[in-house]
Amino acid sequence: MLSMNFSIILVLFFVAINFLNTQSFQHPLDPLSPKEINEIRAIIENSHLKTLTNLTYHFVDVDEPEKDDVLHWLSSTKSNRQPKSFPRRAKVVVIGGKQTRELIVDLSKRSIVLDHVYKGHGYPPLTFEELLQASLLTQKDPRFLTSLSKRNLKSSQVSCLPLTKGWFGEHVSKRAVKITCFYRNGTTNIYGRPINGITIIFDLELLKVTTYMDRYRAPLPKAEGTEFHSRPLKPGPSFPNTTNSKLSIQGNVVTWGDWKFHVAFNSRAGVIISTASIFDSKENKYRRVLYRGHVSETFVPYMDPTEDWYYRTFMDVGEFGFGKAADSLQPLVDCPGNARFMDGYLIDGFGMPNLLPRAICIFEKYSGDVAWRHTEIGVPGRVIRDGEPEVTLVVRMIATVGNYDYILDWEFRQTGSITVGVGLTGVLEMKATSYTSTDQIKEEVYGTMVAPNLIAINHDHFLTYYLDLDIDGDNNSFMKSSLQSKRVKRMTTPRKSYWRVKNKILKREAEARIRLDSKPTQLLVVNSNKKTNVGNLIGYQLVTGQSAYSLLANDDYPQIRTAYTKYQVWVTPYDKSERWAGGFYADQSHGDDGLTVWTRRNRKIENKDIVLWYTMGFHHVPSQEDFPIMATLRSSFELKPTNFFDQNPITYKS
Amino acid sequence: MLSMNFSIILVLFFVAINFLNTQSFQHPLDPLSPKEINEIRAIIENSHLKTLTNLTYHFVDVDEPEKDDVLHWLSSTKSNRQPKSFPRRAKVVVIGGKQTRELIVDLSKRSIVLDHVYKGHGYPPLTFEELLQASLLTQKDPRFLTSLSKRNLKSSQVSCLPLTKGWFGEHVSKRAVKITCFYRNGTTNIYGRPINGITIIFDLELLKVTTYMDRYRAPLPKAEGTEFHSRPLKPGPSFPNTTNSKLSIQGNVVTWGDWKFHVAFNSRAGVIISTASIFDSKENKYRRVLYRGHVSETFVPYMDPTEDWYYRTFMDVGEFGFGKAADSLQPLVDCPGNARFMDGYLIDGFGMPNLLPRAICIFEKYSGDVAWRHTEIGVPGRVIRDGEPEVTLVVRMIATVGNYDYILDWEFRQTGSITVGVGLTGVLEMKATSYTSTDQIKEEVYGTMVAPNLIAINHDHFLTYYLDLDIDGDNNSFMKSSLQSKRVKRMTTPRKSYWRVKNKILKREAEARIRLDSKPTQLLVVNSNKKTNVGNLIGYQLVTGQSAYSLLANDDYPQIRTAYTKYQVWVTPYDKSERWAGGFYADQSHGDDGLTVWTRRNRKIENKDIVLWYTMGFHHVPSQEDFPIMATLRSSFELKPTNFFDQNPITYKS
Repeated sequence: MLSMNFSIILVLFFVAINFLNTQSFQHPLDPLSPKEINEIRAIIENSHLKTLTNLTYHFVDVDEPEKDDVLHWLSSTKSNRQPKSFPRRAKVVVIGGKQTRELIVDLSKRSIVLDHVYKGHGYPPLTFEELLQASLLTQKDPRFLTSLSKRNLKSSQVSCLPLTKGWFGEHVSKRAVKITCFYRNGTTNIYGRPINGITIIFDLELLKVTTYMDRYRAPLPKAEGTEFHSRPLKPGPSFPNTTNSKLSIQGNVVTWGDWKFHVAFNSRAGVIISTASIFDSKENKYRRVLYRGHVSETFVPYMDPTEDWYYRTFMDVGEFGFGKAADSLQPLVDCPGNARFMDGYLIDGFGMPNLLPRAICIFEKYSGDVAWRHTEIGVPGRVIRDGEPEVTLVVRMIATVGNYDYILDWEFRQTGSITVGVGLTGVLEMKATSYTSTDQIKEEVYGTMVAPNLIAINHDHFLTYYLDLDIDGDNNSFMKSSLQSKRVKRMTTPRKSYWRVKNKILKREAEARIRLDSKPTQLLVVNSNKKTNVGNLIGYQLVTGQSAYSLLANDDYPQIRTAYTKYQVWVTPYDKSERWAGGFYADQSHGDDGLTVWTRRNRKIENKDIVLWYTMGFHHVPSQEDFPIMATLRSSFELKPTNFFDQNPITYKS
Repeated sequence: MLSMNFSIILVLFFVAINFLNTQSFQHPLDPLSPKEINEIRAIIENSHLKTLTNLTYHFVDVDEPEKDDVLHWLSSTKSNRQPKSFPRRAKVVVIGGKQTRELIVDLSKRSIVLDHVYKGHGYPPLTFEELLQASLLTQKDPRFLTSLSKRNLKSSQVSCLPLTKGWFGEHVSKRAVKITCFYRNGTTNIYGRPINGITIIFDLELLKVTTYMDRYRAPLPKAEGTEFHSRPLKPGPSFPNTTNSKLSIQGNVVTWGDWKFHVAFNSRAGVIISTASIFDSKENKYRRVLYRGHVSETFVPYMDPTEDWYYRTFMDVGEFGFGKAADSLQPLVDCPGNARFMDGYLIDGFGMPNLLPRAICIFEKYSGDVAWRHTEIGVPGRVIRDGEPEVTLVVRMIATVGNYDYILDWEFRQTGSITVGVGLTGVLEMKATSYTSTDQIKEEVYGTMVAPNLIAINHDHFLTYYLDLDIDGDNNSFMKSSLQSKRVKRMTTPRKSYWRVKNKILKREAEARIRLDSKPTQLLVVNSNKKTNVGNLIGYQLVTGQSAYSLLANDDYPQIRTAYTKYQVWVTPYDKSERWAGGFYADQSHGDDGLTVWTRRNRKIENKDIVLWYTMGFHHVPSQEDFPIMATLRSSFELKPTNFFDQNPITYKS
């Protein structure tokens, strides 16, 4: 769910930056610097667009160079040749004069090189400022004040949140949000005190409430027991003092052990990992693994079809942005004591850069786990006992999207594995009810009673990852390895059965659209042209965790918009323009852009530069333990070298 | 797989203990002390059994008091009344005079109170000493020496491992093992140098080779590149200095935060967690969670049906014992610097107690994870940012069963969750081949070529856990909560679908036998007689990780012995005698004891003291990264409070 609240407080942690903070260009995928952001705004404000009324900036990002150029640049830096300089360009989406415009701004030419009016369905990401307006202006609306006084509620104790309204078949739509309000009355856990029964639609172009219905009154749940506070700060736990830290951060480029990759902070995706390569000591060179990896879209549908809830089917990444929702990380709580931090810059609706301190943290993790070990007593006269503790490198960002906090981890291992982890914490979305015990309930309530008068609604979280794997180069294929039970045919032993592995290279997009089931299967991205020393296909395996797919009906509107969530795995041929699984214009989208649409062409994916899309899913049936604050709920998947190396790379250095 | 090798070295870390080390009795489930073990042996040696020839001890364990008595004892210690003292009794299985005898030895009466000759199928666990004999005597067998000289191999460079031989339909069986040998020739990774083509059966009663067939010669794989060694010891990582450690260990009783439980080291199961309760600050009392939890059986079938491999279908826990295979833990490698250690005692074939130093470690774990957090900007004028780092408590043991090392973790969380984790590391089982590249292979080889001339065989690992949950008391039921897609019937909103939760209490054993599939389902053990403050069923959820079931044919002999591995979940009514999923006499068992057999009665499981059985499974398709040593492969499941507490217990102390 997306929240934007609001108040002047925002300035406390989004400090406007001017032309002071400059950063020299280091990597073609570096995020825009404050200086560049200011230049972009200056270029637009001095262009033919300057006459547009109410010009607002909804999306500003690096317009990325071609992949080939980036890879060429990388290899030239490695060979110490003078790296080719890149024309820095930005992709900008503005709304002005009631039109959505897509611009390409060339920073070296100081000009707009493309200006295109978008006329399709859906809208660009919402801005902080318009959400703030929607909240504050609703709270001043006379109809709302009347509703409050009918309920004997004080307006000073009310918080309102604008929620995206989804799309439900309307032929004509307007940029608008739905508003839901809470009565704090001294508490801080606002979600536990919903004021139910009022439907409010706020028009973001007219900047006013256009639909107002006060339908019914529900009791306010108790405020007692809803608070959550960190327990008094204790001296520990401090973090391991790895005196031999292997971590180096130069600008946005991280090297750690054999790994080298680029970390960027992005307003839409949040943290982006790019050009990740691992050094192979045997081959004495870096080998490519992941060109880009990031969250592409989220889908969070709530399972209550009634008036107050039916539209809550959020696509947070596209409607608002995980980067825009990123929280400044708390040392010693969000990241351990040895963490190093990376700041980020967000661009507000006015096109101004705002510093987000500690947007990303990077730390060596040692949990007491064992990387490998063995004790051998099979050699006479000796006991051979060997092993190593496991130290990994974590890159972390946290997006606080209203009530929910998403902890996004990329964990790199010395073995070549990358574990992508998500932690869900924060507060549930809840509705008020007159019931105080489940014994009284005879109807469907669409959730779990977590406290008297309070029902936490059943919902899902789907996080779809964009994973542009380049396993040892561009020419990759997607392989499904099925474990098949076999009967022993010619019996020379009394054994009757076994399983064997049946490998199949999937040739087109339609085949590679996979709903995971309990059939034992391994999914791999392999290099079609390279083999190991003994002839195995070089590959990385996608090790899925417990996974889920959407249970909504195919013809339900939220499902039409996110049809890709019916399958956890998709594979597409690389296309620079295909990045956002639910389509670029996610707010009120109709499902006519994104993964489902692109793959209708059923393109070839064999022996090509391919992209793997994986959706991590949670079905969340709330329990009382999730109230008033959720203990972190975790899931992960792993990208694991599988016949990528000739042998376990940790033994190369034995 | 089980290995017992061997050599005098054993005495280095299994130091025989006499009447010196005594320990006072503290908890009825405490393992037998060295003093008690010596008393048991003395009682037996002075009994009517003293005339038996070749009396060997195959199993010696506490004969546990009745559960009711233990619980009564626990509650009386809590109320500071004088705890009832227990008659300490031991269950002993000996072989003598060619008969297997089950004895109950009463330590207070200093007498054998039960003596029963076992005449069923299968044999008790093997002893170190007989396995050592099997290995050493085979290496001296003239036929074997002839085979070595034919191959130009030096006998001094050979290591032989005895392997259990399984059961393949024989009507008459004898206690015997199969022997497989390796040619080290200077290397230590013996598994990489198998001498294939020789079938050897060693009779454990006659103490000689009874079948010998030298069938063919295979090339010896290269020794180069097979070594693994810890990289030079570095100063870090040290572990967090939790100055406010909440850990207390009194004898075998551990208290940590709100948790209190008993830890025992057991020769068969390895680590056993008993009488785990959690203090509920709101109710101001300890509430029961887990009466007993441990690994009940393992099943490791290899997928090569040919003569050298077909019988490798190991049931390590029953055939040998995870406790007997436990390794003395290496500080700073197997357990972090803040770990505290618990010693264990093993009983050898002579009935003597042997100290295993550092059999178990217990440590607070801090990995840099976030226990919970939230940032709230919905309250005007404030930014509320709260959270806590996650600190958990881990109880760990490592069983080195020949080539494989199993890392067994029990991780307790402040939220009430218990995560049961398994890490697999060590060395793969491999066979020699004349091929040096997969390109040459036109036949089935049943595995992956991991190095020239070396194929690692496909196999499974199934670990079946015994989980006697007592959720807030004895009267528990097993509930299956299915998430069902529903169509919206009376449309008042444009939403067309949602999912809801359908709860079903499973009434009998047959219903609760579950093969996990991709249908979204939650499995819970609930208390049938207690509800939360708002009327929810009090429960704990089994959160399964990625799981597997056996792919062997139902009529295949190894599958007949472990038929329960076709389903991951079973529920039985508590019966003190039902502990070992594959039957007590696992060596050469016929599948006529264990979970599959007990549940044929289809007993009632509703509103009863019930036991949950969960099988964690791995299908292991080896890759080159698993050679010469495997990076730890992990899996876990979680026992998670679900409407057990009235709210998140970490907020009780806010």
